[in-house]
Amino acid sequence: MVKRNAIVGQLGGPTSVINASLSGLIQEGFKSKKIKHILGMRDGITGLLRDRIVDLGKESPEAVRSLKYIPSSILGSSRYILKKKDFQKIIRQLQRYNIGYLFLIGGNGTMEISRQIEQYCKKNDYQINVIGIPKTVDNDLCSTDHAPGFASAARYICLSVLQGGRLARDMQSIDKFVILQTVGRSTGWLAASSIMAKRKEEEAPHLIYIPERPLNRRKFLSSVKECIEKYGWVYIVCGEGIVWEDNSFVASHYSPDTSEKEFGAMGGGSAALNLHRAIYQEMNLRGEFQITESLPMCAMDRASEIDIEEAYACGVKAVKLAEEGFSGGMVSITRTSNNPYKIELNSVPFGEVALKVRLMDDVFINKQGNFVTDEFIKYIKPLVGKIPEYGELRLEKVDF
Amino acid sequence: MVKRNAIVGQLGGPTSVINASLSGLIQEGFKSKKIKHILGMRDGITGLLRDRIVDLGKESPEAVRSLKYIPSSILGSSRYILKKKDFQKIIRQLQRYNIGYLFLIGGNGTMEISRQIEQYCKKNDYQINVIGIPKTVDNDLCSTDHAPGFASAARYICLSVLQGGRLARDMQSIDKFVILQTVGRSTGWLAASSIMAKRKEEEAPHLIYIPERPLNRRKFLSSVKECIEKYGWVYIVCGEGIVWEDNSFVASHYSPDTSEKEFGAMGGGSAALNLHRAIYQEMNLRGEFQITESLPMCAMDRASEIDIEEAYACGVKAVKLAEEGFSGGMVSITRTSNNPYKIELNSVPFGEVALKVRLMDDVFINKQGNFVTDEFIKYIKPLVGKIPEYGELRLEKVDF
Repeated sequence: MVKRNAIVGQLGGPTSVINASLSGLIQEGFKSKKIKHILGMRDGITGLLRDRIVDLGKESPEAVRSLKYIPSSILGSSRYILKKKDFQKIIRQLQRYNIGYLFLIGGNGTMEISRQIEQYCKKNDYQINVIGIPKTVDNDLCSTDHAPGFASAARYICLSVLQGGRLARDMQSIDKFVILQTVGRSTGWLAASSIMAKRKEEEAPHLIYIPERPLNRRKFLSSVKECIEKYGWVYIVCGEGIVWEDNSFVASHYSPDTSEKEFGAMGGGSAALNLHRAIYQEMNLRGEFQITESLPMCAMDRASEIDIEEAYACGVKAVKLAEEGFSGGMVSITRTSNNPYKIELNSVPFGEVALKVRLMDDVFINKQGNFVTDEFIKYIKPLVGKIPEYGELRLEKVDF
Repeated sequence: MVKRNAIVGQLGGPTSVINASLSGLIQEGFKSKKIKHILGMRDGITGLLRDRIVDLGKESPEAVRSLKYIPSSILGSSRYILKKKDFQKIIRQLQRYNIGYLFLIGGNGTMEISRQIEQYCKKNDYQINVIGIPKTVDNDLCSTDHAPGFASAARYICLSVLQGGRLARDMQSIDKFVILQTVGRSTGWLAASSIMAKRKEEEAPHLIYIPERPLNRRKFLSSVKECIEKYGWVYIVCGEGIVWEDNSFVASHYSPDTSEKEFGAMGGGSAALNLHRAIYQEMNLRGEFQITESLPMCAMDRASEIDIEEAYACGVKAVKLAEEGFSGGMVSITRTSNNPYKIELNSVPFGEVALKVRLMDDVFINKQGNFVTDEFIKYIKPLVGKIPEYGELRLEKVDF
């Protein structure tokens, strides 16, 4: 059997565990009888186009193992969208390096690139196995139970809301509201995950706003008021991509969005800021906004252990699929049991995921569109792992 | 010897370790031969005024022990500034509960309140020992090497910049700049602490802007440009209270500052946002801002171990000082050795700390006013504790 070379790239936004997938892929690839060299492209697909190719065989086994616990995209990344003229160049590069296996780690945009390359190679009789490895903190990938990277970012948000919620409660005599903005583009998965910070009704978060449910300004303000009356304070979590009922973004941007796919702080405006302003203008209350932006995408110290292991396993699975001759699809995660939590890895054709956006399921969102359901808690609970529980004092009134 | 009661309050903004001080104080207080009951005031000094007093003797030993690891201010807090008419009420309350020992955990505002109460009691022949316990993430307390709470918040900032720096580096083909804003009011201690994320010149942070050094817009933009040319990207850390050369805040606020002492996101505007806008307008580059606001003030999972122990020890020390008959001052930390790091706890009169702001020492700030010195690294290093080191790959260009 003739061995051929493999090449791997990391595309789109980083996560805490995208290098874990790379680590699994490289280690499994080293063992493969079908793969000779494993190459890496720098800065995503642009590295392939511009011949910035590295030899991952030169890395020490120890470095490859430790990669599992290094956040962000060590090969560099890009959001480059392929142009027609690029495909010829790509096929020339694949030929030049005798690439028989192309692995791209990324989200729905990356799966479209993978699909296009696979089709172009087929049409031009270039034999190659193209396999996608899922990755996104946004969790907006279709046909997979969830995407590696999501659970770790979700855990960061949970810890923030858990601890920020304690602070907000303790400071309620001064500051009445907090708005924490998560990334997540046009989906509310990450904002919704903050629910795992809450154990009692009075605890944060009290309100969760997601792009799947447009906000009505009047209803929003009355929900805020209601919470403050009931709890003495309110902790609001919102996705960066939330919209008003007229479909305009709550975030106002002054910086044009170069990729037409970015939200939030990138554009210079922010949803949290505008909600802050709305509350201040209506109620003249003091409060704060928290915009952690991309920090949850790289916070390895807060990563979900399950997420690390799954991301690693997805890298391993991609090589196994390649060895079986599979091509034209992405590794997917199927949850086979929720209690105990069990998954198996499968594959889905690129067509099912490419450019598609998985919004939050209706069954995960409450009727008022400002919170999540118990169904969602069942979904998210095993993913984020153990969240600390902070005790309370009894704080009994003195009786003398 | 007649035992008298003690009362304790937590004032001002929370920290990750202010409950550790409370835990130390309660446990030491339970052992004291001079203290009968230990009471707590809810929501700071307002709890004393409004008779919201709890009996901490009712707490289980286990709850008091675990308090050491619970972030934020479990008694609640306030930023209430005493009015003339309040003092009579306070002395009546102290008499009513037979308070012989008053402990207030807080910052420079709290030490002023402590000073005023002590003087008023003296003038009115009410025998009481008033002792302050230092607490502030801002580290702006005079006459103490540092303040409990600071190191833990600093560690949060270091982890954010370490991980956010990896992400920014890996994403440099798309996003050219990041601005992370820290709290810290009119001082740059927290922003400066981000230096501990950096091990090599090319790593984040590249520029650190602090309120102690006003910004010149032209120089700021040229430093940013220089870094992007040199490293391909730039990671900027700024304090919330930074000012332009004309002494106007870089942050623009639309919400009036109720206490006249708040900066940043509280006011609805933010320094990071305006720096983001300045860079975008000048260079038309894409980048992001990160405004974690109060999250570093309550992130127990990222707390500095030394900080927890020191905060606890300060609570213990306060009781010991009270037993020795000390009154009218705050527990202070003296660094007796830097390598190995050693401290001892002492006390300083309220007059030395009340309402005073400790700016960063000149020797800690570089000549250009946009970075810190090696002297500062020596100061901060032992406080933040171990910061993870993420490895690198060799990423050697393929040679076939």
